[in-house]
Amino acid sequence: MTQYKVPVLPGDGIGPEIIAEGRKVIDAAGERFGFDVEWIEYPHGADHYLETGELISEETLKELSGYPAIYLGSIGDPRIAPGVLEKGILLTARFYFDQYINLRPIKLLEGVWTPIKDKTSKDIDFVVVRENTEDFYIGIGGRAKKGASKDLLEVKRTLYSAKFGLDIETDSEEIGYQIGLISKEGTKRVIEYAFDLAENRKKHVSSVDKANVLSDIYGFWREEFNAVAEKHPGFTTDFNFVDAITMWFVKNPEWFDVVVTPNMFGDIITDLGAMIQGGLGLAPGGNINPKGTSMFEPIHGSAPKYKGQNKVNPIATIWAGAMLIEQLGEKEASDTIVNAIQKNILDGKVKTYDMGGKNTTSDVGDDITRIIKGE
Amino acid sequence: MTQYKVPVLPGDGIGPEIIAEGRKVIDAAGERFGFDVEWIEYPHGADHYLETGELISEETLKELSGYPAIYLGSIGDPRIAPGVLEKGILLTARFYFDQYINLRPIKLLEGVWTPIKDKTSKDIDFVVVRENTEDFYIGIGGRAKKGASKDLLEVKRTLYSAKFGLDIETDSEEIGYQIGLISKEGTKRVIEYAFDLAENRKKHVSSVDKANVLSDIYGFWREEFNAVAEKHPGFTTDFNFVDAITMWFVKNPEWFDVVVTPNMFGDIITDLGAMIQGGLGLAPGGNINPKGTSMFEPIHGSAPKYKGQNKVNPIATIWAGAMLIEQLGEKEASDTIVNAIQKNILDGKVKTYDMGGKNTTSDVGDDITRIIKGE
Ligand SMILES: CC(C)[C@H](C(=O)O)[C@@H](O)C(=O)O
Ligand SMILES: CC(C)[C@H](C(=O)O)[C@@H](O)C(=O)O
Repeated sequence: MTQYKVPVLPGDGIGPEIIAEGRKVIDAAGERFGFDVEWIEYPHGADHYLETGELISEETLKELSGYPAIYLGSIGDPRIAPGVLEKGILLTARFYFDQYINLRPIKLLEGVWTPIKDKTSKDIDFVVVRENTEDFYIGIGGRAKKGASKDLLEVKRTLYSAKFGLDIETDSEEIGYQIGLISKEGTKRVIEYAFDLAENRKKHVSSVDKANVLSDIYGFWREEFNAVAEKHPGFTTDFNFVDAITMWFVKNPEWFDVVVTPNMFGDIITDLGAMIQGGLGLAPGGNINPKGTSMFEPIHGSAPKYKGQNKVNPIATIWAGAMLIEQLGEKEASDTIVNAIQKNILDGKVKTYDMGGKNTTSDVGDDITRIIKGE
Repeated sequence: MTQYKVPVLPGDGIGPEIIAEGRKVIDAAGERFGFDVEWIEYPHGADHYLETGELISEETLKELSGYPAIYLGSIGDPRIAPGVLEKGILLTARFYFDQYINLRPIKLLEGVWTPIKDKTSKDIDFVVVRENTEDFYIGIGGRAKKGASKDLLEVKRTLYSAKFGLDIETDSEEIGYQIGLISKEGTKRVIEYAFDLAENRKKHVSSVDKANVLSDIYGFWREEFNAVAEKHPGFTTDFNFVDAITMWFVKNPEWFDVVVTPNMFGDIITDLGAMIQGGLGLAPGGNINPKGTSMFEPIHGSAPKYKGQNKVNPIATIWAGAMLIEQLGEKEASDTIVNAIQKNILDGKVKTYDMGGKNTTSDVGDDITRIIKGE
């Protein structure tokens, strides 16, 4: 019996409910495929923050870095200002563990309703590889207030007027700014990962940018993409402006195989991707560091208004769990979980409200468990 | 007979073909409603750039600033690197004339096919007000190359490591970065415009941001939004993260009335908006400075592969022409053009390939002209 230890952060809102189902399903897969998971619970999230003032400590992060994979529920609470928990826990973990790949399968399972006309599960089946540690997510920005940061305001004013001949009045204007930054190494490694992934798929890699406007940062991205592409002669590639790709996701999703994107644009297009694959209840994500600590989560939020109601769809979380055990090396068990999800949906008898059903969160977890056990 | 002078920049690719139809339709509306437009042609675009090296000169811009409205075809050519023409002409004009509003009606006309299931023209009818002169469009960014801009790299490295305790190796990494900036006045005026617009609609204003991650720039945006909202007690408002709003555009477009958004996110979500309203062939846009020089254009690009084929849909450009004459004060003529577009579509006999027809660009222009003349 192989033994794994997996830290689990159920988090806020519906997090604990969906994570319970994910654990149940992985435990069942373990029984069938001969492995056992010891779950190590961590309390981090809104309550813990309100009680102790701690988001997540350096010490905890160090401890977590001893494990190959973390299971995450969802983070976010209406009692706390937007960004505090997300940045303080979720983004901190992505950066700390250098999880430079955010992997998001956009796959319409058979039998799932998509809001897009004339598309079936054959048409919607691609993967988005989102860069996960750079770009506009680095958290560098600020404000220039009247009087306060005069120097900075001066710098901006000079830059601004040098470019446009516009005058920003130091006394009447205040400014908010943000800096995005990508590095050569950081860009290269994620694009290489995308090509590696496409190797076993259709060998088609689509890049996303806005190099016609944010030319400095994304012109750089484009050059790195070209450099990596040159080393992969058998592949087809294309460039997509981020505005245009939102159209193609809706109109021609069958075009895509592997999509690689800078962080912020990846955030946007994967939510759209989740919608075309049937909604957030069905969209898993992995934050991956192939040689370090990865972290798996549903891509939806903590849905505070459904908390404690045993109502929401656990499939995204269960699917994220399948990605987690694949990362641990349990490929067969992982496939079995995904197939069980597919079977649950095709059976169509046990489903939550978002899929037009009346069952509970745990009913769905139980049904998928039953399928895995072959009962 | 009222006389107007309107500068027209047909631009590249299909630009001249679609602009010809737009002019034809406006001329017909002028005949019926008692005004006459003198069109003043400008050659700016790819050919002009390749021949003369000029994008658009300060002198030309000054000259154009004497007019209330410009009619623009489309800019962009595969012979020239992405961004050169777009930034050198289109964005330069938006900035030079301080066209701080980019107005994009997302309206599914009756009889138009949308890729979204179960939605009709009653469900898809809102307006996006995109800020148009700030944010990540200000063109400030750069690179830090090994050896070259050492100082800058040093600054970034300090910022980066101060925030994350990460070390960027000065010798092994190169960096591309971009700065976005919004000002208090620039944010306030566009949000106020959105509220003014909603006054005569459903008094519902939705704001777009990503304040949970790009907190410095968009936290600032949010505060300004709240400040303006407070002065409008009879309105309903909501905040939408940009990733989430792409989902709602597809799933619940009927939710929206007026959406106000920073520049870059506006670029992305209005392309998605164009798709749900039936495609780029049907999506007009206005770059507006209420007290200065505005500029109207289809939101699609120059579609080089269709150039000279008399094939593409001129409706977006004709609709943009209707917005243009509304700006000139010809509200009735403007409404008549939009109604004529609607009638052409409902008749369903004369339509271009993108709408499932076999007619030419000029057939469609002719048909809409005929409807306006009441023939
Ligand atoms: C919660 C938020 C910080 C996060 C992000 O922006 O990355 C989320 O939207 C996601 O996509 O995982
Ligand atoms: C062509 C490009 C510079 C432009 C933009 O990014 O604004 C276009 O996409 C638009 O939306 O008008």
